[in-house]
Amino acid sequence: MKADLVYEGKAKKVYQAEGRPGELVLSYKNDATAFNGKKKESFEGKGELNNSISTLIFQKLHKSGIETHFIEKLNDTEQLVVQTEIIPLEVVVRNIASGSIAKRLGIEEKTIFEKPIIEFYYKDDALGDPLINDEHALYVTTITEAEISEVKQKALQINHQLLELFQSIGITLVDFKLEFGRKACGDIVLADEISPDTCRLWDRATGEKLDKDVFRQGNGDLIEVYNEILQRLEAKA
Amino acid sequence: MKADLVYEGKAKKVYQAEGRPGELVLSYKNDATAFNGKKKESFEGKGELNNSISTLIFQKLHKSGIETHFIEKLNDTEQLVVQTEIIPLEVVVRNIASGSIAKRLGIEEKTIFEKPIIEFYYKDDALGDPLINDEHALYVTTITEAEISEVKQKALQINHQLLELFQSIGITLVDFKLEFGRKACGDIVLADEISPDTCRLWDRATGEKLDKDVFRQGNGDLIEVYNEILQRLEAKA
Ligand SMILES: Nc1ncnc2c1ncn2[C@@H]1O[C@H](COP(=O)(O)OP(=O)(O)O)[C@@H](O)[C@H]1O
Ligand SMILES: Nc1ncnc2c1ncn2[C@@H]1O[C@H](COP(=O)(O)OP(=O)(O)O)[C@@H](O)[C@H]1O
Ligand SMILES: [Mg+2]
Ligand SMILES: [Mg+2]
Repeated sequence: MKADLVYEGKAKKVYQAEGRPGELVLSYKNDATAFNGKKKESFEGKGELNNSISTLIFQKLHKSGIETHFIEKLNDTEQLVVQTEIIPLEVVVRNIASGSIAKRLGIEEKTIFEKPIIEFYYKDDALGDPLINDEHALYVTTITEAEISEVKQKALQINHQLLELFQSIGITLVDFKLEFGRKACGDIVLADEISPDTCRLWDRATGEKLDKDVFRQGNGDLIEVYNEILQRLEAKA
Repeated sequence: MKADLVYEGKAKKVYQAEGRPGELVLSYKNDATAFNGKKKESFEGKGELNNSISTLIFQKLHKSGIETHFIEKLNDTEQLVVQTEIIPLEVVVRNIASGSIAKRLGIEEKTIFEKPIIEFYYKDDALGDPLINDEHALYVTTITEAEISEVKQKALQINHQLLELFQSIGITLVDFKLEFGRKACGDIVLADEISPDTCRLWDRATGEKLDKDVFRQGNGDLIEVYNEILQRLEAKA
């Protein structure tokens, strides 16, 4: 199903889909990176876990009427998606203060945001994915003012769905990162992945971190906690 | 005219105005600081220069119908202003890329922004005055959504006036920082100062920096360039 390698990122390889113009194969790797690539390690089985988790989540979003790039899961580590022109923004939605926002604003960790906070980071490894504001986004990307509103509204809708999904499996959705891409017709849809690599997920009963923070902080078994997420999602599906 | 010292900042002391409730005396100091207070030096005459420059600029804004906290210049280093509750935002307007925005977004220094870019920094020395977005501002300050729009609109109006003023004295207004405060009645007005401490000012003929960058970069005589700004403004007034 794969033709030319288009791009190799930190967590996935991207291939043109053989004989299917306008579609891509996302191939999930076992690599984990953190701190702008300064920490790096490979975990046997991570690619499979994230491919499966992201698939289940995108399928759930589809069912809720949210349009995404996702077409189908192809095999253990690969999925077929609609090719888009990625808007180089990491759209972060935060329900609870953790990580950079707690540091930046001097807010205590675990503070609950009554209204979720949306942030844009400029997706540029060389610049260290800096936080930007809407005016910066208008300047450095092709996004328009109307599309910024649209992306924020979609991000909140997705948050709503994900909060519900994770709550139903005993998990608090602290925050997560989205990427949006422009389809050939010009429309913007949710792209990339949603997985424990891109979310903060805390067990509601124990407070245990079930996401990439176990790798960032080196205090847990990444495969074990990612597998825990997958098991709970599958039991629900 | 001065009663109790209310606050001593990096560049000014703030006193209650004797027998004038709801008014303050701003007393300009000779200190210059940069890099979040890490670089510090005192310059004989700086207080007088900034008091005079900021006075001329606020008077010009008044004439253009822009409401500010400024009441009158009292003497060489002091001015009388309306007491406000400062909104802890540094509102930055940028006409040309220089300094942190060039680094943050990877834009070449001196790139002209067709549309000026407005940024909010959270005024908090301990946090290093971080860049924030509108949602952060709503969270960490008392500002409302409507007031954010109002502040941005006022910042653009002020930019318009200042561009014209500085152009008329042979100077390019690259960027500048504003602070807004809430009056007792609830209205938000321009407060603090506008001076070479808070603006980037480049000589249009030579490109020479006529602002605090000569101190930051240690490549010029601060008093000489601040005096140059004052002389040109006075010749115009
Ligand atoms: N539907 C899509 N169309 C085009 N590119 C996509 C799509 N979905 C994800 N991508 C991009 O593919 C890459 C996925 O690989 P990843 O390892 O996550 O890269 P990175 O290290 O750049 O984050 C990312 O650059 C992501 O923006
Ligand atoms: N009209 C006003 N009412 C109340 N506070 C003001 C007013 N104008 C300026 N200020 C505040 O007075 C202080 C001026 O001193 P400054 O040396 O600039 O302080 P800082 O080091 O905090 O920037 C600032 O904190 C500024 O926000
Ligand atoms: Mg990625
Ligand atoms: Mg100040």
